[in-house]
Formats: sequence, C-alpha cells, structure tokens
Amino acid sequence: MKKLILFLASACLPLVTNADEGMWTVDNFPSDVVADKYDVKIGDRWLEATRLATTRLENGCTGSFASEDGLVLTNNHCTWGCIRNLSSAEHNLSDEGFMAASRDEELQCPSQQISVLVDMDDVTGKIASATSGLPDAEANEARKAELTKLESACEAAADGKLRCEAVTLYNGGQYFLYKYKRFDDVRLVFAPELDIAAFGGDPDNFNFPRWSLDFSFLRVYENGKPATTPNFFKWREGGPSAGEPVFISGHPGSTDRSLTVSQLKLQRDVSIPLYLYRQSEFRGRLLAWQDTSDEAAREVQQRILGIENGIKVRRNQLKALQNDDMMAQKLADENALRETVMNDDQMNAAYGNAWDIIDGAMTSYRNMYEDYLFIENGAAFGGSLFTYARTIVRGTAEREKPNEERMRLYTDAALPQREQRLFAAQPVSKDYEILSLTFSLDKMREWLGPDSKYVHNILGNDSPSSLASRLVAESKLDDPETRKALWNGGVKAVEASNDPMIQLALRIDPDARALRKRYEDEVEAPRTRGEEMIADARFAVHGTDTYPDATFTLRVTYGSVKGWEEKGEMVDPFTRTSRLFERTTGERPFMLPASWIAARESLNPDTHFNFSATTDITGGNSGSPIVAADGTLVGLAFDGNIHSIAGDYWFDESTNRTVGVNTAIILEALDTVYGADHLVDELTVIK
Amino acid sequence: MKKLILFLASACLPLVTNADEGMWTVDNFPSDVVADKYDVKIGDRWLEATRLATTRLENGCTGSFASEDGLVLTNNHCTWGCIRNLSSAEHNLSDEGFMAASRDEELQCPSQQISVLVDMDDVTGKIASATSGLPDAEANEARKAELTKLESACEAAADGKLRCEAVTLYNGGQYFLYKYKRFDDVRLVFAPELDIAAFGGDPDNFNFPRWSLDFSFLRVYENGKPATTPNFFKWREGGPSAGEPVFISGHPGSTDRSLTVSQLKLQRDVSIPLYLYRQSEFRGRLLAWQDTSDEAAREVQQRILGIENGIKVRRNQLKALQNDDMMAQKLADENALRETVMNDDQMNAAYGNAWDIIDGAMTSYRNMYEDYLFIENGAAFGGSLFTYARTIVRGTAEREKPNEERMRLYTDAALPQREQRLFAAQPVSKDYEILSLTFSLDKMREWLGPDSKYVHNILGNDSPSSLASRLVAESKLDDPETRKALWNGGVKAVEASNDPMIQLALRIDPDARALRKRYEDEVEAPRTRGEEMIADARFAVHGTDTYPDATFTLRVTYGSVKGWEEKGEMVDPFTRTSRLFERTTGERPFMLPASWIAARESLNPDTHFNFSATTDITGGNSGSPIVAADGTLVGLAFDGNIHSIAGDYWFDESTNRTVGVNTAIILEALDTVYGADHLVDELTVIK
Repeated sequence: MKKLILFLASACLPLVTNADEGMWTVDNFPSDVVADKYDVKIGDRWLEATRLATTRLENGCTGSFASEDGLVLTNNHCTWGCIRNLSSAEHNLSDEGFMAASRDEELQCPSQQISVLVDMDDVTGKIASATSGLPDAEANEARKAELTKLESACEAAADGKLRCEAVTLYNGGQYFLYKYKRFDDVRLVFAPELDIAAFGGDPDNFNFPRWSLDFSFLRVYENGKPATTPNFFKWREGGPSAGEPVFISGHPGSTDRSLTVSQLKLQRDVSIPLYLYRQSEFRGRLLAWQDTSDEAAREVQQRILGIENGIKVRRNQLKALQNDDMMAQKLADENALRETVMNDDQMNAAYGNAWDIIDGAMTSYRNMYEDYLFIENGAAFGGSLFTYARTIVRGTAEREKPNEERMRLYTDAALPQREQRLFAAQPVSKDYEILSLTFSLDKMREWLGPDSKYVHNILGNDSPSSLASRLVAESKLDDPETRKALWNGGVKAVEASNDPMIQLALRIDPDARALRKRYEDEVEAPRTRGEEMIADARFAVHGTDTYPDATFTLRVTYGSVKGWEEKGEMVDPFTRTSRLFERTTGERPFMLPASWIAARESLNPDTHFNFSATTDITGGNSGSPIVAADGTLVGLAFDGNIHSIAGDYWFDESTNRTVGVNTAIILEALDTVYGADHLVDELTVIK
Repeated sequence: MKKLILFLASACLPLVTNADEGMWTVDNFPSDVVADKYDVKIGDRWLEATRLATTRLENGCTGSFASEDGLVLTNNHCTWGCIRNLSSAEHNLSDEGFMAASRDEELQCPSQQISVLVDMDDVTGKIASATSGLPDAEANEARKAELTKLESACEAAADGKLRCEAVTLYNGGQYFLYKYKRFDDVRLVFAPELDIAAFGGDPDNFNFPRWSLDFSFLRVYENGKPATTPNFFKWREGGPSAGEPVFISGHPGSTDRSLTVSQLKLQRDVSIPLYLYRQSEFRGRLLAWQDTSDEAAREVQQRILGIENGIKVRRNQLKALQNDDMMAQKLADENALRETVMNDDQMNAAYGNAWDIIDGAMTSYRNMYEDYLFIENGAAFGGSLFTYARTIVRGTAEREKPNEERMRLYTDAALPQREQRLFAAQPVSKDYEILSLTFSLDKMREWLGPDSKYVHNILGNDSPSSLASRLVAESKLDDPETRKALWNGGVKAVEASNDPMIQLALRIDPDARALRKRYEDEVEAPRTRGEEMIADARFAVHGTDTYPDATFTLRVTYGSVKGWEEKGEMVDPFTRTSRLFERTTGERPFMLPASWIAARESLNPDTHFNFSATTDITGGNSGSPIVAADGTLVGLAFDGNIHSIAGDYWFDESTNRTVGVNTAIILEALDTVYGADHLVDELTVIK
C-alpha cells in the first residue's frame, strides 16, 4: 500500500513531492528543498566545482577527475570497449586486468572521447522564432537547420576550442546550446580483472546486496601530455556514513517520465517486446558461440554482459508498463492536464490538440516501426563493417550539401566525432561480424517477411548466412586506411568502390532515406510539435520548479545513503568484504581472480564494499561521482537496484536505489590487492 | 471497422453468432446452423463415421485413416519426433525423406501411440456428488480421486481393451469419460523431405499464400500386423472448390476463450513473456550450436522449427492480449455476466463470488509462478535424462500408494503410457542434453536468483554448465534397460542408485512436491472451483447451445474454402505449383529437394497446392482431415494464417483462416515426384 500512495503522489512529473526525486539541471537545482530536508547548503560554488570536475564519456557514461593531471575515475564497464580494443589473443586485458606502472605505459583507447561542460546558452526563443507558424514537417526541418546554424556559430565564436551541442530539455520546452571542452586522446591507466569488476555477472546485475569492484582509471591527454585539470574531487578514505546526504553529478541517458500514454503504449506493445525477442535470441547465439573457441569467448565476453544488461533493463521496464494501476495513473494525470487546458480558451487554442497530434504520430510510427527499425535504423545490419559503410556512403553524400541542409549526424559540428570513430584503429573480428550480420539479416527477414521489397533488395536469392559470409569475407572496411581513403575520396570514390559492403549500403540507401523522410515527416515532426506544446502547457499550469527528462546532459541529483524494505526485511545500505569471500563459488560469475584470493588475509573483512542510496539516476550515470555535501568523493555510481528500472517512468523513493562502489574498498584494493601506490599517491585522500 | 464489429459480437463465448465459429463436441454439433448457412445436411451417421475415421496422435496431433489396413494420414511435422528417432549420422531421414517400398520396410516409431474415440460417458453428476460441500482444496483432491476411480472402473469394464480418460469440458461445466481404442505399435510409411514438407520454414510459418507439402503416412499395427480399420476416408482427387463448405474433425489442444480477465492478464504479464524470453534465447543457442557440426545440425533441425513455431504463436497471442479494445470487451462481457448473476439472489448465492475466487488464485499463482515453473514444472531441467529420472523417482514412489491417492500422472490408467515412453528406445544425444540442461539451469538461476534456496539445493557451488556436463556424462539413463531396471526395482532400487541424475531428482523432490502441493491448494483448487461456478452460471444464463474451450478432445468445426481481405487486397484461397518453383531461391528454407527439381517438368503447374478455409481450429488440429459434406477427404489441415493465432481468445471469421494441404497435390506428388504407386493404390480416390 505504501508504494502505491507514493506512486500516486509522484507519477506526474511536474508535481515533485518531498521525495529525493529529480535529475536536475545545474542551473535549476532545488537547493532550498535540499536544505529543508537534509539541513545542508548546496550553493552555486559547490555546483560549479562539481560540474567542472564531472566528465562525460562519449560512449554513454560519466566520469570524474581524480587529480590535476587528467586522471579520470569511471566504471570498469564504461571501459570495456577500450579494453577489448587493446586486447589480443595473447593478452586478454579483461581477464588479466591492467595497470600502467608509469604514465609511459598508459594505452590509448581507440575512439574514446571525454568532455567537460563549461557553459550553457538558452536558445529557446531562437528556435521558437525559426519554427513559428510553419506546418509540422517544415517546422521540423527549420528547427534542425537553426540548431545546426547555432552550433556552427558557437564553435566559430570559440575559435574551435569548444564543442557546441544543441540540447533539448523538457521534451521541447527548452532548447540550449551546451559548450564542452573535449579531449580526444584518452588512455587506459588501470582496470581490475573482470571477475572482480563484474563479480556476480548477470545474476547479480541490478541486485543489491552486491560486491562489484566496478571501477577503472583513464587519463585525458592534450598534445601528447597529461592534461591539466585543476577541478577534481578529493576522496574520502572511509566512504559515506549511513543516512548521510549524498549527491550525484552525471549524464543520465534518457528517461520517459513526460511521455504521453500513447507513447508509453508504443513502448509496451511494440518497441520493448521486439527488442527483447531479438536480444534474447542474440544472447543465446553468443552464449553458444563463445564455447566454440577461446578467441570467440574473448570476443564476446563483455558484449554478452552488455546484452544481458539491456535485457534486464527492458524486461523490467516492460513489467512497469504492464502495471495497469500505473498506466491508469498516467492516463489520469494526462487527462487532468488536458482538462485544465481545455477549460482555458487561450491555453486550449495553443495546446488543446497536442495529445491528438502525438497519438497520430504514434499510429504512424506503429505502421512503419519494423521497416524503419531494420532498414533505416540499421537493425538489419549488425556488426561494425556495415556501420562503417553507411557512415562513408552517407557522410560523403551529405558533405556535398550546405551545412544547414545536412542530416544532423553529418553537420560541421558533428563531423569531427564521426571521423574520429570512422578512422579509429579498432580490431574487427570477421567471425564475429559474420555471426552478428547473419543474425540481424535473419531477424530482418523474420520481421519484415520474405516478401518485403526491402528484404528482396537486400537478400536477393541469398540466405542471411550466405550473404553475410560473402560480404564480410570480401569487404576491406576492417582496414582504417581503406575507410579513410573512401571518406576522403568523396562520392566519386564511393560510387566507384567494389567493396561489397559499400555496394550494399549504396543499394539500400534510397529505400532507407525514403523511410527516414517518412519517419521525420509523419512521426518526428508531429511528435516534436506536440511535445513542445505539452511542455509549454505544463510550464503554464505547474510552473518551472521541476526537472526535465534525462537527455545525456549534465544533471545533479540528491538523496541519502539508505537501504529499503524488501519482502518485510530492511536491506542494510552497506556490504562488506567478508561476505564477498563467502559468496565465491570458484565458478564464473562468482569466481574471484587470483589477486583477490592471494590478498584475502591482508584485507579488512569489515571494509565497506558497495552501498545503496536514494539518489535518482539512470543509465548514462554509470561512472558518476557520488559526492558528500562537503564536496568530497565518497563513492562511484555503477548500478541501481532492480526497482530503479521502473525509474524510467516514475520515481519511487521507497524502493528506487542507486548502487555505488565505496571509496573505502577502491582505496584498499589499490593499496592491498594491486600495490598501486603511484595511483593512490596521485589522489588527494581525506582521512 | 468491420473487424471490430465482428469482434464485439463474438468475443463472449456463449453468444455464438452466424460466424463459422466453434470447436464442437460431436454430441452437440450445430447441424441446424450449418444447414441454414451452407444448405448441407450433417447427420448423426456422418458424424459417427467421421469420428471413427479420425485418430488422435498421443504426441499432440490428429490424423485420419486412409485405408482399411491402418494407414494413417497426418502432417509431416507430427512425425518429426519419430523421424529423428529413426535417423542416424549416416541416414538423416528428415533430409532424405522416407518411403517404405513394402510393409516389411515400415519402421516402428519409438513411443508413438494413436487412439480412436469410440465412446463417451457423461459423469458430471458423479463429480458434483464427490466434491459437494467440501472446501476448495479438499474438493480438488476428491475430484481427482473420483476421476481416477471412474477411469479404472471403466477400463476394467472393457476388459482392458479400451483406454478411459477423464475429460473436462466447459472449464468444469461438464465431466466426461472418453473411451479410446489405442494402438501402441505405430510405424512410419512415408515422409517427404523436410525441404518440401516445411518449405518456407519459419519465415512462411503461419503465412498464406503457402507451399508446404506437410504430410506423412503412418500405419497402426496390432499383433505385428497392420490393424484392420474399416472406417477410413475416401479421397477426392481434385481437392475442394472455392466456396465449398468443409468440415474439420480433430483434437484441438487448448483455447482460452472462457478465461476470466485476471487469467488472461496472468498470461499477458507473466507466463507468455517469460516463455518468449526463454525460448528466444534457446532458439539462439540452438541456431549457433547447429553450425558446430553436421551431427549437431541433424539433432536440432526440427527442434528449431518447433521452437520457432512456439515463439510465433506466443508472440501473436501476446499481441492479441495487448489489444486494449479486446481486453476492454472481455471485461465488459465478464461484468455483464456478473451483473446478471448478482441481480438474481439464487444465482448470486451459487456463483456470485466465482470471479473473486479466481482472482485470488491468480494472485497466488503470480507469487509462486517462477518457483513452480522451474522446480516442479521442470523448466529448470531441460533434456530427456532428467525427465526419465523424475518419472522413475516419482512413479516408483507413487506406485506404492493406493490408486486413488496417486498423482494423476501415475494412476493405473495412466501407467501404460508412462511406461511406454520410459522404455522406448529413443536415441539420446549427450551433447544436446548438455546444451539443453545447461541452458535451463542457467535460466533457473537467472529467474529465481542466485540466492534462491532451490538454486542452492540444485547448483551448490557448481555453475550450470559444469553441473550439466557432469550429470549428463555420468548418467546411464540414456540406456532403456537401465531405466527399466530402476523402474521395476521400485523405491529401493531408486534410493540405492548412484546415477547422478536420479540423485538430483531425489534431492529436489521434497522441494518440488511442496511447490506442487502449494500450487494445487492455492491455485488449482480455487481456480477449478471458480471455473465450475462460472460454467454453471453461463449455462444458466445462456443455455447449452455452445461449445467448450479446446481440451485435446475430439471436435468438429465447419466453414468454407475462402480467402480474406489483407491490406485491402483479397487473398486467393488456393496456391498453385507454378509459384512454388518461382519462390525457390536455392537456399534453405526456400530450397527444393532434388526430387522436386527433377520432377518440375512433369508436374502440372496449375495443381492446387495449399488452401485456406474459415474453419475454427488451433494447435492439436495439426494433421486433421478436411472433409467435404459428402464425407470425402479434400485436404489436410497443417496450419492457420497469422490472424488465426488470436483465435486462442476469440474467433474472427473475417480474418481467421485454416491452412491445409490439398489432396490434389498430395496425390500428384505421390504419383509424379515419388513414384509411390503402391500407396496411391491403397487409397480410395474419387475422381
């Protein structure tokens, strides 16, 4: 009962209660609410220092500076891509772990970038002017063109020293330009073995109590030298106390708390089930394939964990959406706002048909969902090689257009990141490429049907596996130089290429672009317009003391170190080292690496290992600093408990918990297990 | 719009409209309705002849006699188990097809049984007396004891010549004893190659237009000789005409049209999603595993098709349950009946709380669903070896109890089938057993969690794969003689056995039986009681001119050969041979076997291949005879179109179609492709 009451009170986004709810933008943090509830003062200086010490990892994570020499703390799982790229059949850094004995030994991560938010401009008015009075589809194009123009002007104004990105907040209620300092040279400094970093594997993922040492260190470089980063967190040796207020600064990826009921139902009925069927099968294929060789196992060990994580998230999102009480409450909230709007002539004229517009967009989306997903969104084309091919085909064609007319992925502001990723020397396993492409082509045929014109265009008389095998075997796009030559050669070189993956990307491009156009005009345009209208209606009715849905932009959340009641029992917010050893079975994923078995007697069995807190976070916050009111780092966010997944749709303080690694165990492990004195010395540790 | 109106009219079971709806028991066939609609007379003699020419395959299919010498026509996919059991690394009968040149060459199918329904007794009153006035859990036990007693008495009265099975109709509104003549010696006579029998594979499954030659011939034997079967169908050479009324006699497995909304929601939210996640992953494991060797491919080729079929069914069932309009209509129907009951004091006293009772049962089921599924229902223990072990452990223990106190699976009436399956000499692939058991143990740990007491009891410090590998390697239960010795040795032999699979079955049995007891008392007992009450309420309000949900018992359905409107286009009810060849790609599942390629020029391109009809069928009807009003066989049911899957919950004549193989193509293929003159000669073909 308790849960339901809380839920009723907090389901509607703008009506924030006294719960520790909200992923707040730094310019709108509710310091007064926090002062009232926790008796601590979070001032502008605190917020600025925290912002400048927080980093965004461009692969979808967060990190924080740990020294003035560019040392970055993040999760181990945020560095898996880098670790795989740096591994080989001879050296599996994932199994072995990695420690650079000195800075010379730090290894550059291909394609990793790290950014720091240095400034923000509100451009809501400019976007409103650019789109005012236009029909939805034209407004949609004008909006994008204006954002592209603003980004380029912003970068020019900064002499190319900053990266400017357009940001949508409150589902279109506000538009900002966020300005980042971006580091393109990122190196791996330290990573523990996967067996301790992801101890418990998928069975323990999203569970708590928990014992995962999910951290790594990276370092950002400028001009070949460690960057100077004066804003960094000092670390507290003993971690946080029970009940202590804590704050998390980071880049939550996305939440869906403001969506309309028709948008939620599209997820419930269409997108999440399809995701789950596809990924469950792919998981099975990878699990069986990894037994075929050591190399296969190495290639997919972290990918499997990633897929399993996605499955657990979607499964529990679906469970939340299948909660009829929750859906009824969402509908009641929606109807309440609609009624308020309807009863005011002016508001009704401005916002009254917003929900119908979105419902129409969702109907259009349902009608084209599978075609769009597989053909334009790329679900038919698994693996890296096609992704390279499409980037080359699209990018060379788009580059010939004026900047403001290009797809947003290929504007002048976006091209440096595209190029960095395209040229990065990442190893490509052709066996994995075949597996992945076969699977995705197979699912395409299953979902679009063998008589689909797209399927005919792609497969012809081939089977998914025969086509995939041929394309992967013959393509040369695994070579960065080949990619670079095609990219630099432009449209002519691309059209002359006999690379079969390039040819496939070319052949499907007219179909794919037509689907994109239809999606933009019939789904994106009305949805965006409708969302802007609802956002404005919410501001008009409820005011602006609220937070926007997550958009992989910087947010600060607050809460306290606290357990919760699970099946009538209180869960202790702290786990301790002693139980880690008791939980070990000797078999993965409950197997400890040799380093930990050797160090067992030297470790303090009472050290706090992982902990839970009431802070409101989501995916993208991985690697976020957990900071005390005095500004010291006390932990590292790496997960939530199982209840936190419903947080995509609403926040329930009674059960939703962040799960973090305690600074206490990181420091003890560096010292006692890994002998990483040079790293501990680089930190500023407060007793 | 058309669809919705039809649906509104037909959603509530007892309100059968003029649609071709209903899986009717032979004693209650709506001959008058059929005469009105189709102007044909279906009399008692027709129904009796059809019943006696229809067979039940005890592996979950239907068949029909095709000659007086025990020849049985059924689907190819109903014989996959037999074909796999008769194949070896040297001879893959699935790929090669099979034709016995003479009766001497017909091959016995291990563990296949075929039955014919010869008589039915209504025992509703006896069950009502046995359970009257008892609390739910006691009534549940008394009901089962009475059914066991009645079955044994029935078999004794028939001198052991008939098999008597208790049957529940109208979800407890009626109880019957069905009496079967059962054939234990079933042999494979003819099977086409899988590539033509399942042409189009999973992509085409549940699709129409279609070109699958999904038939096989079996033969039943008695005392080592072909059985004499005077009731058989004559075949019509040219198949049915467009618009012609047709009838299907068979054993539909189960439908859910009478379920309450709380029961449907349990499927929607709990059982179907869990099924889909598990089976999608297993599908992926099998698809990757089949590439590891030819033997692996042979072992799983039909299993994969079976799994893919199950996935498609469940996925489309879920889609039907996610139809909010449909769910609202189900709720409205339920509320209308409840209101009628509530407004009548006598009915209210008798049936008023039936829905609350079922809702309570569903809540209990949700709370134990995963534990029950994995531990007692066996989802944790994939493969044959554990199934053998549990049958031996349970059966020997149950045999020591008085007949009426045993689990229903081990009553005197049930034991012959248990023993036939246990002793059957089916090949066991240890590699497949390891794969299957590893997967299921892995899913058990995933869903029950690593801290579950059941998981601890089963895995100890093992991982799923290490435990599965050891158990399968060391178990001797793949040897039928070992199984027989343990079974005959009884409890003592079982307890003394050092077979690790027997030991696992013994170790988990107390946990599993406790879960069964809880399920029986808290879920099954109240659900059965509530369903009986609702069935009686329906009879009282709507009368008895209706049909019960399917229960794998004999039903007759009616309809006509007809296409339907798909996306604005009318689908032709017939496909023809010419298009089969055009659809061929040379790659599975669109690859033709050599026999068909060689025969191409000799085949009539216009021969009717598959066809669609409005008859109301479901899984279990596979292999059912499609019969004309004159009693001749015109086709063989093997599938439905994609819309037929929603038929689990309601019948929509505008789109729901049976898909059948035309007798025309079967006869031409036997003659022209396979040179099976001896089989054609055995049939009685009407020009």
